[in-house]
Amino acid sequence: MQTVELIKTKRDGRELSREEIAWLIQGFTHGNIPDYQFSALLMAILWRGMNARETADLTLAMADSGEQLHVRQSISPAVDKHSTGGVGDKVTLAVAPLVAACGLPVAKMTGRGLGHTGGTVDKLESISNFRAALSREEFWSILRAHQLVLAGQSSDLAPADGKIYALRDVTGTVESIPLIASSIMSKKLAIGASHLLLDVKVGSGAFMKTLSDAQVLAHTMVDIGTRAGVQTAAVITAMDQPLGQAVGNALELAEAIAILQGKGPADVTTLCHHEAITLLLMTGMAANHEEAEAAIHRAINSGAALEKLAAVAAAQGGDARQVRDPSLLPAAPVRVPLPAPQAGYIAAIDAERIGLATMKLGAGRFKKGDPIDHATGLLLYAKVGDQVQAGQPLLEIHARSEAQAASIQAELLSAYQWSELFVSPGPLIYSEIS
Amino acid sequence: MQTVELIKTKRDGRELSREEIAWLIQGFTHGNIPDYQFSALLMAILWRGMNARETADLTLAMADSGEQLHVRQSISPAVDKHSTGGVGDKVTLAVAPLVAACGLPVAKMTGRGLGHTGGTVDKLESISNFRAALSREEFWSILRAHQLVLAGQSSDLAPADGKIYALRDVTGTVESIPLIASSIMSKKLAIGASHLLLDVKVGSGAFMKTLSDAQVLAHTMVDIGTRAGVQTAAVITAMDQPLGQAVGNALELAEAIAILQGKGPADVTTLCHHEAITLLLMTGMAANHEEAEAAIHRAINSGAALEKLAAVAAAQGGDARQVRDPSLLPAAPVRVPLPAPQAGYIAAIDAERIGLATMKLGAGRFKKGDPIDHATGLLLYAKVGDQVQAGQPLLEIHARSEAQAASIQAELLSAYQWSELFVSPGPLIYSEIS
Repeated sequence: MQTVELIKTKRDGRELSREEIAWLIQGFTHGNIPDYQFSALLMAILWRGMNARETADLTLAMADSGEQLHVRQSISPAVDKHSTGGVGDKVTLAVAPLVAACGLPVAKMTGRGLGHTGGTVDKLESISNFRAALSREEFWSILRAHQLVLAGQSSDLAPADGKIYALRDVTGTVESIPLIASSIMSKKLAIGASHLLLDVKVGSGAFMKTLSDAQVLAHTMVDIGTRAGVQTAAVITAMDQPLGQAVGNALELAEAIAILQGKGPADVTTLCHHEAITLLLMTGMAANHEEAEAAIHRAINSGAALEKLAAVAAAQGGDARQVRDPSLLPAAPVRVPLPAPQAGYIAAIDAERIGLATMKLGAGRFKKGDPIDHATGLLLYAKVGDQVQAGQPLLEIHARSEAQAASIQAELLSAYQWSELFVSPGPLIYSEIS
Repeated sequence: MQTVELIKTKRDGRELSREEIAWLIQGFTHGNIPDYQFSALLMAILWRGMNARETADLTLAMADSGEQLHVRQSISPAVDKHSTGGVGDKVTLAVAPLVAACGLPVAKMTGRGLGHTGGTVDKLESISNFRAALSREEFWSILRAHQLVLAGQSSDLAPADGKIYALRDVTGTVESIPLIASSIMSKKLAIGASHLLLDVKVGSGAFMKTLSDAQVLAHTMVDIGTRAGVQTAAVITAMDQPLGQAVGNALELAEAIAILQGKGPADVTTLCHHEAITLLLMTGMAANHEEAEAAIHRAINSGAALEKLAAVAAAQGGDARQVRDPSLLPAAPVRVPLPAPQAGYIAAIDAERIGLATMKLGAGRFKKGDPIDHATGLLLYAKVGDQVQAGQPLLEIHARSEAQAASIQAELLSAYQWSELFVSPGPLIYSEIS
C-alpha cells in the first residue's frame, strides 16, 4: 500500500477498507508514516467523514496499537463509564463508587484536565498521596479486591490515540466526529469492559455545542462499542451551566462525597442516580428501575458507597480520612463572595466562561503539564431559574489571595444573564441511546 | 498569528488575508511552520479552494520567497511562455527562437520532465555539452546578446514552490487549481517578463483531463498574472493524442528544428505559428495578424529562426552543429516499426499511454533524478483521422535494443482505437483567454 494513494482515496470521498485503515494506524504509530502525510489524511477525514464501518475499524485499529486489558475476559459484568467533559462534572467520582458498592465492578481509567473542563485524576489527586499511575498488577488487584479501580490513563493502552491527538491538536483536525469518537472509544476498547455508559455533554461548557452534534457523536460511539462487542449506551446531558455547586478539584471531590452521603445538590444528584440506575439495569444487576433505585439508596444510606471510595483511595495510596471527612481536603486560604449586581431571575450561567475564569485561579491547565492548585475554585449559591436580590452572594470564590479572587470577578459576572421573569433551567437529560 | 488558527480559517471555508498568506509562506519556507501543519493547510485549500484575491496573494508570496529577476524593469517587452505539458510537446523549443528571431526578447526558464510528459531542459540537453544551469550574469548576458535565453529553473527563484510541491506530491494535494496555478505562476512572476503566454493542455495526455478544468486553470493563471502587472494570455490546446510526430528528447528537438526550417508536421507547426503570432501581437511587435505571419515566415525562410536556436545553444555551451544538422544528435541504435494490427481509421491515440510506454525506453523519468536516454523515443507515422492498412507501420520505435523495443509494443498498440469510418481529429485549439 502507498500512503499517498490512501490519502487520495479519502480525499476523493471513497471508503477506506479495514486493511487499509489498520495499515495506516500501524504505520503512523510505528513512525513509518510521517506526520505530514498523516495530518493531510486527518484533514481529508475531517472533510469527507467516515462511515460507521470505517469509524469502527479506525477505533479497533487504534485500540490494537498497544496493550489491551481485555477486562471482560476475567470479570463480567465489569463496567466502564466516560463523560465527554464539562464544568463541575464530578459524576464519575460519585457514580463509580456508588455502583461498585452495589456489587457492580467498575474498571475505570481516567485522564487529566485541559482547558476549561476538569479531569477526574486531578480531582482525585486532591487526596494526599493518591496515586493514579498504577502498574498492571496493581490495577487488577485493586479491581478484584474492591470491585473498583480509578487509574490514570495508561500510555501503553491505545498509544495511537495519543500520537494522533497531538497531531490533531496542532493541525485544526480536532473537530471531526469520527476522530473524536475513535479517540474516546479506542481507549475504552483497550480496557475492554463488558458494558460502557457514555455521558455526552452538550452546551456552552461542553465540547459539543449543539444537540444535533452531540446526538451524532453519541450514536457514533454507541455504534463503535456495539460493533466491538461491548454493550454500550449513551446519555446526552446538559452542560449549559456548571453542574452542581462546586467547580474546582477538591471542591468537586467534596461535592461527590456529599452525593455519596445523600446530601449533594439536586441537579448533579439526579444525574448521578440516573447514570447509576442505567448501569445497574444494563448489566442485569437490577431487574427493574425500582430495584436499582433501592440498591442505590441502600448503598448511600448504609455508608457503603462512601466507604467504597475511601477504601479505593487508600488502596491507591491516598489518605482515606480525607474522604470520610472532606474538611481535611486542601482548602483555599481566601474565600470571597461575589454579590449579585442586580435583582432578578438568573436566566443563564455560561459554563465555559465560569470554567475559564476558574482556570485563572490555578484550578485548570492552560497547557499540558501545567501544575494544578487543588484547593481553588468556586461554590455556586444560585443556579439558572433562581431568584436573587441585589447584593446577595451569587457564588463564593476560593482563591490563593484576595488579588487573585478580585481579578476574575468581572469575568465571572459576565457569565450571568438576567431576567425579570422566571426562566426554567431546561432539561438536565436530553435523550438516551443504546 | 497562530498556524493552527489559520488552518481552521481555511478549513471552515473562510478567506485568508494577504498578510496571513504571506506569513504562512514565509514561515513554511524558513522552516518555522512544520510540514505536518502545512500539509493540513494544503488539504484544507484543496477542499475549500481559494478565491482570485487569495490565489494571487499566495502566488505573490511564493514569488517573493526568494530572488526575483524583474526582467521587465530592464528589457520590455520581454516575453515568457509556459506549457502545462504534454506528450510530444516541443512547442517552446520552436516558438522561443522563432519570436526571438522576429526581434522579441524571450526570457525563459524551463524545467525537467517527470512522468509521461517531457521537459524542455531534457530535450535541449540532447545537444552535446548544452548547459541549462546558468549564473545570473550568464542569464542576462545571453538574453541581451541573443534576445533569447533557455535556462534551467533556478532554485533561487520562488523556493517556496519547490518546498510546497515536494509536500503536495506525497500528501495527495497536487490536484488543486489554486495550488497548481500558484506553483506555475510564482516562478513566472519571479522572472518578471512583461508578457506571458500560457499553453494549457487538455486531454488524456495532459494534467487537465477536462475542458472545464483547463478553462478554470487558464482563467486562474491569467487572473494572477494580470493582478501582478504581467500582461498574460492563455491558449487552451488539445493533448488527446501526442503532438506532432516525435516523442522523445532528441527526436522532439529534431522536430522543433524542422519546424524552424518550415518543414515540421502540420499540427504542431500550426500550433507553433499560432502561439508565435499571439506573442507578436500581444507585445505590439506586429500591428496585425498578417504582419505577424509575414514576420514569422521571414524568420523561417531566411534561416534566422534556426540560427537563433543554434546561436543560443552555442552561447550555453552546446554544439551548434547539431542544431544546424540534427542527424548529428544522439540516435538510438535500434529502430523497429510497429505494424498496424488491422485496417481502418485511427479513432484515438491515448497520449498518456504513449508517454508512459516511451518512459520505459528511458526517454522519461519514473522518479526525480532518474537519468534520461536522449536518443530513444517514437516517431508516429499515422495520427487520428488517418486511414491505414493492416501491416502498415503505425510508428517507429527508437530503442536501445530489440528487446527493449519489443517490451513496449503491446502497450503502444493498446493506446490505439480504431474505426471503420472516418474520425475527425478534433480541434487543436479550443479557446483563448486574455
